[in-house]
Amino acid sequence: MKPQLLKILRENKDFVSGEALSKHLGVSRVAIWKHIQKLQACGYDIHSSPKGYRLVQSPDTPFPWELPERESRIHFFDTASSTMDIARELARKGCPDFTVVIAETQTRGRGRMDRNWISPEGGLYFTLVLRPHIPPVMSPLVNFGAAFVLARTLQEFCGVDARVKWPNDILIHGRKVSGMLSEMEAAGDQVSFVNIGIGINMNNDLPPDLPFATSIKNISGKTCSRKAFLSEFLDRLENRIHQPDLPTVIAEWKTCTATLGQQVRIVSHQGVTEGKALDVDPNGALVVRTADGSLKKIYYGDCFHT
Amino acid sequence: MKPQLLKILRENKDFVSGEALSKHLGVSRVAIWKHIQKLQACGYDIHSSPKGYRLVQSPDTPFPWELPERESRIHFFDTASSTMDIARELARKGCPDFTVVIAETQTRGRGRMDRNWISPEGGLYFTLVLRPHIPPVMSPLVNFGAAFVLARTLQEFCGVDARVKWPNDILIHGRKVSGMLSEMEAAGDQVSFVNIGIGINMNNDLPPDLPFATSIKNISGKTCSRKAFLSEFLDRLENRIHQPDLPTVIAEWKTCTATLGQQVRIVSHQGVTEGKALDVDPNGALVVRTADGSLKKIYYGDCFHT
Repeated sequence: MKPQLLKILRENKDFVSGEALSKHLGVSRVAIWKHIQKLQACGYDIHSSPKGYRLVQSPDTPFPWELPERESRIHFFDTASSTMDIARELARKGCPDFTVVIAETQTRGRGRMDRNWISPEGGLYFTLVLRPHIPPVMSPLVNFGAAFVLARTLQEFCGVDARVKWPNDILIHGRKVSGMLSEMEAAGDQVSFVNIGIGINMNNDLPPDLPFATSIKNISGKTCSRKAFLSEFLDRLENRIHQPDLPTVIAEWKTCTATLGQQVRIVSHQGVTEGKALDVDPNGALVVRTADGSLKKIYYGDCFHT
Repeated sequence: MKPQLLKILRENKDFVSGEALSKHLGVSRVAIWKHIQKLQACGYDIHSSPKGYRLVQSPDTPFPWELPERESRIHFFDTASSTMDIARELARKGCPDFTVVIAETQTRGRGRMDRNWISPEGGLYFTLVLRPHIPPVMSPLVNFGAAFVLARTLQEFCGVDARVKWPNDILIHGRKVSGMLSEMEAAGDQVSFVNIGIGINMNNDLPPDLPFATSIKNISGKTCSRKAFLSEFLDRLENRIHQPDLPTVIAEWKTCTATLGQQVRIVSHQGVTEGKALDVDPNGALVVRTADGSLKKIYYGDCFHT
């Protein structure tokens, strides 16, 4: 009901009478009034007068009804401990492909390597439940695909020079605007689900003790509609992941990366590797030439450009 | 207490008095008597007389106390729906590396490609919970390692010509004696657990409507101690999985396989591929030359030797 109601209000700059809305949508005037009240409580600025209702402004919040074609697959929370944890429960219970869990803020947002992800209002925090028909060995391609599509969408939709730091942080002018975390479950030879958690510093400010992080708003000097961006990103990603040529995403990823050609230091639980980042292999491993001239393949770790 | 009690009884061919056992083990004679009763209920043939207790015969059942060094990590069930399901719950709750879930029979044993695994008494059915420190992309190496070690243990311990059919069925003279099923969960860039379920037709008979299956007993004409075999296999596998050169297991696997050089037909949800099996790549994919001369890499499917 909410998408249809909002559609009518958005198409009319003037007041629309409760009676007209009631006729159009086939529900009582009391039902209309209740929906209006709920929308107002969600931050929609709707004026009501004896002439009816008029939408003055909508909040930039990715409510499920703001992405009407995906509405049934979107789980929206004002605040959540972690969208990853909620998405995992949903995935294990069998939720459909491209289910999206969004939280306006997270109290215990998680990043890679067991770190926190600070999640203040104005950022975009969500986890996708993906169910690609691939063997587990191909699952890193999904992460690389998501990182590539995210960088490209930021470039084209927000007009910023977004680049991927291996494997899947997004940097702009060397400062981090987005991080990605994935979880996977596989049964037999098939992936059951790959959950990808994405945090984007969109219109939020950042604590001053994170000098290497920034936000899209800080970089571009203007806010970017989070709900329109999310809709665009989801459409692009769903289309890319379902392509049969998924493995070619590594080549696309390389066109958007800030890591290749750089001197890097990779830190993992296994130790530290330093050298020049030469390539990314078909599995997503970073190929590094170390000081002694030998080549080393690195499958995971924290990458620092030095 | 049971391992120590059994050890003393096994070292003495004659009766051992309750008093001597009580002194040796530091518990009351009533406690000794209770343990004896429990062992008898588990199928141990223990004679008792005024002279004490005498062990005549032990059942060939892999009770936890029969693998004393692993006892705390073994979960034994007379019957279970599926050791995979129990192991998954244990793994998610944080059970240690190399936890083993064993069932004497399974009511809903599972095989690859959503099939049943018939699990009558006399076979060996267990799931291992493994926690290797590897990225998800390397997890197939664990399956190949388990298949290789299983084939080698069957060869050397049971004296049968066990060979691996890609990816991880064990055949003897072209007939299946074992199947393997794996499940994996990964968080971030690290495997949380790889559970490997193994069913071995050891001393059981098989239904006549499975002409392509057989058992170790049928092939070799004698029974093989399941508890001794399991202990040997677990020791070998734990040693192999923890080696830093895990990737070389693909080369070892190739020395034990019946698939390479064969004409094969691979059936998966994606379709059917026919050709000659040429190689297995470092990720475990089967490289097949098809009729038109092209090479195809296959990541999963049912493999038939044609």
